[in-house]
Parts: sequence; C-alpha cells; structure tokens
Amino acid sequence: MLSEVFNFFLKQILLSLALCVVAGHAAAANTAETSPQIRVGILLYDEVEIIDFTGPYEVFGQAGFGVVTISKDGKPVTTAMGLKVTPDHSFANAPAVDVLLVPGGDEGDASRDPAIQRFVRERSMAAKNVLSVCTGAFILASSGVLEGLEATTLRHRLPGLARNYPKVKVIRDVRWSDNGKVITAAGLSSGMDAALHLVARIRGSDAARTTAMFLEYDWKPEGGFVRTLMADRYFPEFKPNSKWPSDWKWEQLSSFGDTNQWRRRMQVTASGGPHALLEAMSGDVETMGGWQRIDDAKGYVWQREVEGRRVQFSLSIQSNPELPAAYELDMNIKLI
Amino acid sequence: MLSEVFNFFLKQILLSLALCVVAGHAAAANTAETSPQIRVGILLYDEVEIIDFTGPYEVFGQAGFGVVTISKDGKPVTTAMGLKVTPDHSFANAPAVDVLLVPGGDEGDASRDPAIQRFVRERSMAAKNVLSVCTGAFILASSGVLEGLEATTLRHRLPGLARNYPKVKVIRDVRWSDNGKVITAAGLSSGMDAALHLVARIRGSDAARTTAMFLEYDWKPEGGFVRTLMADRYFPEFKPNSKWPSDWKWEQLSSFGDTNQWRRRMQVTASGGPHALLEAMSGDVETMGGWQRIDDAKGYVWQREVEGRRVQFSLSIQSNPELPAAYELDMNIKLI
Repeated sequence: MLSEVFNFFLKQILLSLALCVVAGHAAAANTAETSPQIRVGILLYDEVEIIDFTGPYEVFGQAGFGVVTISKDGKPVTTAMGLKVTPDHSFANAPAVDVLLVPGGDEGDASRDPAIQRFVRERSMAAKNVLSVCTGAFILASSGVLEGLEATTLRHRLPGLARNYPKVKVIRDVRWSDNGKVITAAGLSSGMDAALHLVARIRGSDAARTTAMFLEYDWKPEGGFVRTLMADRYFPEFKPNSKWPSDWKWEQLSSFGDTNQWRRRMQVTASGGPHALLEAMSGDVETMGGWQRIDDAKGYVWQREVEGRRVQFSLSIQSNPELPAAYELDMNIKLI
Repeated sequence: MLSEVFNFFLKQILLSLALCVVAGHAAAANTAETSPQIRVGILLYDEVEIIDFTGPYEVFGQAGFGVVTISKDGKPVTTAMGLKVTPDHSFANAPAVDVLLVPGGDEGDASRDPAIQRFVRERSMAAKNVLSVCTGAFILASSGVLEGLEATTLRHRLPGLARNYPKVKVIRDVRWSDNGKVITAAGLSSGMDAALHLVARIRGSDAARTTAMFLEYDWKPEGGFVRTLMADRYFPEFKPNSKWPSDWKWEQLSSFGDTNQWRRRMQVTASGGPHALLEAMSGDVETMGGWQRIDDAKGYVWQREVEGRRVQFSLSIQSNPELPAAYELDMNIKLI
C-alpha cells in the first residue's frame, strides 16, 4: 500500500518535472494558501458581454485569486449572445471582495438600476481595486465611482462617456487606464490585459508573466494593442442631413485596417442611386474644412495634414451584381 | 407618431455614422439573416476551462454565427475554477451543428465517457468543421476523430497526446493546426485565434478581421504567439531518481521568458539541504549527453549547441529568509 502511494507520488513528479510542466494551476493554488487570499467579485447582469467577464475570470483564477460571480437577485443571467450563467451570490449574500470586476455589454439597464448603482458604489468603496471592462465603465460612472478619475471604454462609446459624465477624464489612446485603485479597460478583449496588469500590481510582475505564459497569451505589460490608434480615427465624421437621400439604408460589410490605413465597406440602398449619396457626402467633406479635393480620375479623393502626416480619404462605389437594388460604398483612409 | 419614429431612426443613424461606428453586432446580425446561418455547438462538461469555450463563443457570436451550448444531460455544469453554466441542450435534444467546438480543461473524465465519445464522433461526422481548444484535443482523439490527422494541444500535454494516440500526428510548433475539416488549437487563449481562423475560412478574411477589430483583439491571421517556441523547450528533462533526496517537495514561484531566455523559480524543501539536490541534478545533466560543464565561479552552468545556436543552462539556489526550512531553486536558459 505504501509503495503504491509512493509510486503514485513518484509518477506525478516524473510526469510533471520530466515534461517541465509550468504548472500554473498548482502554483496558483499553492500561492493562494501561503499568502492572503485575494477574492474577486464579478458583477453579472442580463446582456453582460461574455469575454468581458470570462477573460478576466480566467486570468484571476489562474493567478490563484478566488473568483465569485454576483448578480442583483442571485438568479441566472443570460449574457449577450445567450450564454446562461448562474451567479454564486446575490447582492444580499455576496461576500466581501478585494477586487470588484464590472464587465460591459448591453449595459444600459444595469447602469440605470439604482440597486446596481448602490451595490457598485458601496462595494467599490470597500474593495482594494475596481476594474471595469468595455462599457462596464458606464456602470462605474453612473454609480459615481469615476468622478474626477481617468477612464476609458469601448472605442465607439468614448464620446458618449465624455458627454454623459463630464466629471470623468476620458482617455482615448490606451488599452487600459490605471488610477491606482480604479482601473478601466478598453473594449472586450482588453479586459484580459487589464486583469494581468492588476495581477502584476498585486502579486508582482513575475506572477503576471507566469500566468500569461500558462494561458499561452502574448501579454504586453506596457499596454499592447490600442484600438483607438488605428487609422479609422481619421475618417471624416459624417452626419446625415437634409441633403442626403432620405431613404438610405446601409449594412456594414467589413471594417478593418491598421495604424496606417483603413477600409470600410458598406452595402447601401438609397433612392436616386449611388451618385446622389456620393454627391451629398462629398458636399459634407467640403464644408468640414481641412480636407482638400484631389484631382483624380478615380473620383472622390481628398487629403489633409494631420499630426504632421498627410492623410488621404477616398470614397467610391461599386455595383453589386448579386443585389441589383444595392451598391457598395467603399471608404478608405491612407496615411501617405 | 411618424415623426417620432423618423426622429428615432435619424438619431440612430446620426449616432452610429457620426461616431464612425464599426457596428460589429449589427453587421453580424444582418449577415446572419442574408446568408445561410452557421450554427456552432459547444460541448460543455464539468471542469471545462472557461476561456477555452468563452473565447471562441465570443468570436463566433460577433461574427454572426449562432452559438449553442450542449452537455450530456443538459444539466448545469461547473467549469474549472467554478463558473456555473446551464447548457442550452442535452445530447438528446441538441440541434444539428455546422461547427462542433470541443474545449479543454480537466478533460480526463469527459474523454473516457462513452456517451461523450459517441456524441463527439457522430457530430464530428455530421459537422462541416470541428474545432478543439487546448486539451479538448484529447476528447477528439479518444473519440477517434483525430486518427491520421495533424493535431496540437496545450504545451505540456503534447508528449501525452503523442504517446497515448500514436495515430495522431502531433504538431508542436503552431498556435493552431488546420486539417481542412478538423482544426485543433494549442492552449487556452489560442482558441480565440483558431476561431478567428475558422471565421476567415467560412466568411472570408475581411469578416474575420472586422470581427477581431470589433473585439479590439490584435489577431495575427498567420498564427501568432506560439508558446512552444519559447526558450524553456531547451531545459534539460530531469527525471527524479534514486539519487535525488527522497522527501523533496517543490512549488513553482514563477516561470516565464521569451524565445531567447527563460527563468523558472521554485521553492524547494528537501532533507540534506540544497546542495544534495543540486549535486543530484548536476549528475543527471552530465549523463544526459550534449551538455558541457562551464567553469564558472557562480557554480552550476552548462552549454550545448542546439539548432546552430549555443544554449546556456544554469542552476542556482538562494536561501529564503521568510521560510528558513525552504530555499529557492533558480533554473535559467539563455541563448547566447
């Protein structure tokens, strides 16, 4: 019997060391025993975004933190896109937490709910750290937690955060913003990076790097990918107006690029055909100031100087043989 | 009333276009309506790893695919680290799926369960694509789905996959491996990249890039971060043996690096003190062949040639003032 136990133990050692196991789990679990336990509480609500809370959950869990999920009434929640999760606790019976995680999603109802606001406000005061991901920043802001602090959020919600919460110093050009106690991450996947950053602050850089390596995740401790620095920030800001075809409709086909160029394709229908829309948009660009029309056989091309570089914007249309009533609007930004 | 509707509609357009919204959700939802629906079925089981299934769930959902979760009996599952998820379906009432996703985790029980094996085998045959993440490859392998195919998995489980499933061609140096129908991702976070790769194959590269940009995720379409290429692959493979202190115990403190260097720190206790262990390990290195001892005042340093480069391995110990009975074993790899 003893030799069996010994053999089992030896086998475990052989397996683990022989393969040079990184043993993230084991290290994490052991660390939690030998140093003060860190407990993370994750706020859940209907329409919460999956990756906003599961990315940090995985990071904190692998780092050896205890993680619990909490919703207002403790009843199951349905996330955006339909995953069904049963929280560990309701507000009434949630334990004290060291880190409060407030994920984003379709956060409108949650950010207006007085019970959620009160919970977030009180638990933020009691916690050592507060981390929002994506539009979770709106829940922090509506709860009064971000007053006087720097904060970031999902790229296309940045203007709304600044407009609705003038006491928040909105930061555009970061993957996460760290106020010391309160950290806000940009959109969706950036929550994982902010969580690793917080692990580094609590347990040290070595622990965070070890966790990232176990996750096979290419963590950039200094920040990493910043969505707002991509070239689509140079697009003219169109505001459809009385000169635009009144019945136009669009559906985005694709939108991607990098820091030097961006292409957005939209499928459009509008009475009067594509040229009426192009002319209306063209007129808008002319009145925006700064953009200089370029004589170009291809059609609608403008340039302007921004941050010491020349930015070229072009508009073009293509017919769509599969959908004769629709056409494709192609918008390009290129730094030259 | 009509003008209210019109105002609402105009406001929506203004908000979205004015802010140059990428509108990943909207595009995704619309796309799903205008082209054949792609349905992804995610296998869930107790101890499934959170990020293994939630990362791909988020990617596929944002790309406009329908996603459902499926477990053997349809009852709630508890993931590794304790998240409670209620599946949409049991095996008995699961709909047909175009993509079967098999996540990893503590997959031992699942990979030995005949009902799960049968489900995975049958659904893999019927599906257009099958994607495993991390140790999910073991479930595919035990179900016979990987016979004669290339496959990868979590870094330290690669040798086990090769040993237990000799008909599987195990690939070490990739973030994901694509056989056409069957794709296997490496560890944990690599599932997101493999999911984006599959979106690119099904909907085209533009759609995948648009999805990644909306997720604010720095996707590398050609592969990205490959954990197995890090320098810890050059560590000597120790197998504790009769010359080692019989009562030694270790706990990993940290383990990280890059392709050129790696440091692993372990807290160790063993009778006879640190030097007995160091001498035993040192003796092992000498018998491994290839490693040449370097005269170095600091102690235990070896070098060898690998792949045309010189690799240096060093072992050292430090006492731990906080834990007098324990000491720290420091293992370093450096390419020079």
